Amino acid sequence: MGYVQCNLVILRKAFAFDFLLYCQRNQRACPVLEVCDPGETEPRLSAPGADLRTDVPRYAVYREGRSVQDETDISHLWEPDFVSFLIGSGITFDEALERAGVPTDKNRWVLRTNLPTQPAGPFHGPLIVTMRWLTPQQAIVATQVTSRFPFNHGAPIHIGDPDAIGADLKNPMLGPPVSAVPKEFVSVFWACGVTPQAAAEAAKIDLMIAHAPGHGFITDLKADQLCLP
Amino acid sequence: MGYVQCNLVILRKAFAFDFLLYCQRNQRACPVLEVCDPGETEPRLSAPGADLRTDVPRYAVYREGRSVQDETDISHLWEPDFVSFLIGSGITFDEALERAGVPTDKNRWVLRTNLPTQPAGPFHGPLIVTMRWLTPQQAIVATQVTSRFPFNHGAPIHIGDPDAIGADLKNPMLGPPVSAVPKEFVSVFWACGVTPQAAAEAAKIDLMIAHAPGHGFITDLKADQLCLP
Repeated sequence: MGYVQCNLVILRKAFAFDFLLYCQRNQRACPVLEVCDPGETEPRLSAPGADLRTDVPRYAVYREGRSVQDETDISHLWEPDFVSFLIGSGITFDEALERAGVPTDKNRWVLRTNLPTQPAGPFHGPLIVTMRWLTPQQAIVATQVTSRFPFNHGAPIHIGDPDAIGADLKNPMLGPPVSAVPKEFVSVFWACGVTPQAAAEAAKIDLMIAHAPGHGFITDLKADQLCLP
Repeated sequence: MGYVQCNLVILRKAFAFDFLLYCQRNQRACPVLEVCDPGETEPRLSAPGADLRTDVPRYAVYREGRSVQDETDISHLWEPDFVSFLIGSGITFDEALERAGVPTDKNRWVLRTNLPTQPAGPFHGPLIVTMRWLTPQQAIVATQVTSRFPFNHGAPIHIGDPDAIGADLKNPMLGPPVSAVPKEFVSVFWACGVTPQAAAEAAKIDLMIAHAPGHGFITDLKADQLCLP
């Protein structure tokens, strides 16, 4: 809590330009915090001394777009043309939400929507969102607080009716299935850093290594360093 | 006034990844607003219907890092591997500054500093800054106002002593040479969108086409669409 948290995506250099372009075109979902040079394993700007082959608690290895194995160390898989992308995670602003009285624990879903993203090269797919259920007052405060984090998804992209963005509540990527939103709550949706990972899966590229869900990379940057007054 | 204004950089595809990486690593100076696909001349996200070969009032053509000619139409130079980058300009927030009582007309220098940028591939060089002279009260208001534009350089990177960042007042890139800052003013410095253009010059790549100084591209996006509350 209090540090900038990241999604990790590792791809071959051949796909790096198109992937970076995909992130640029979908900045709300894919705020790129650092891209290592090809073969480089140390994110020297955001976490000097770290090693991206060993310092993520759990990795998911994708081949041809399918998750084929989990690893806790990817040193044996590392190749010199690997390019590592650290992409800001919404978990970064959880502490700021808590400080403002907005509950974050066990109040988070990751959902597919029917909103298309802007494609780039082979990368394409729907926007993935984080959903929280908040009281109307909390929803207003959460909008204010997260607007201060433009480099970690920023303000919500939608408030209210999940159907308006085709949010798939019955098959969440994270969190329990939902049949209906309780009347006292408003659903609040943020663009989610899983979006680029899903786009890389959809592209069916030969190899991608990502953090396993819920096992992101924590940088040395303080969350408040990357936020606005 | 009121629309998002951009610096334009056109490079060959072979340099596009390293250049985009350079922009990502130096986001304050190089907020990328749109990157066209290779060969594409229409910035369809920020100015649908525009043609980047003809719709910039004046272009500067660089070969091996040197400005060799100016053009008002680059159709005859266009090649299918050209990638166009639109990079946010500080001029975008001039209207917001004026609305807040901060004078912008004839109060703007572009200066080299001795602050290094983060290199990427062949791209490297010092941070270029925009300087304005403001009263202390205007400097505070200008900091507040520009903080709302994180995708157009955002808050100042420095306030006060030009020597502290090695700002070269004697040889400005834009504006008259300065011998001393008048006592009643504070110098306020913002990261400038000319930085990536200077890095491309320093890289001495075979060909770069940019807007000529003071002749940027104006998008269809309203400045207030890309700012925070």
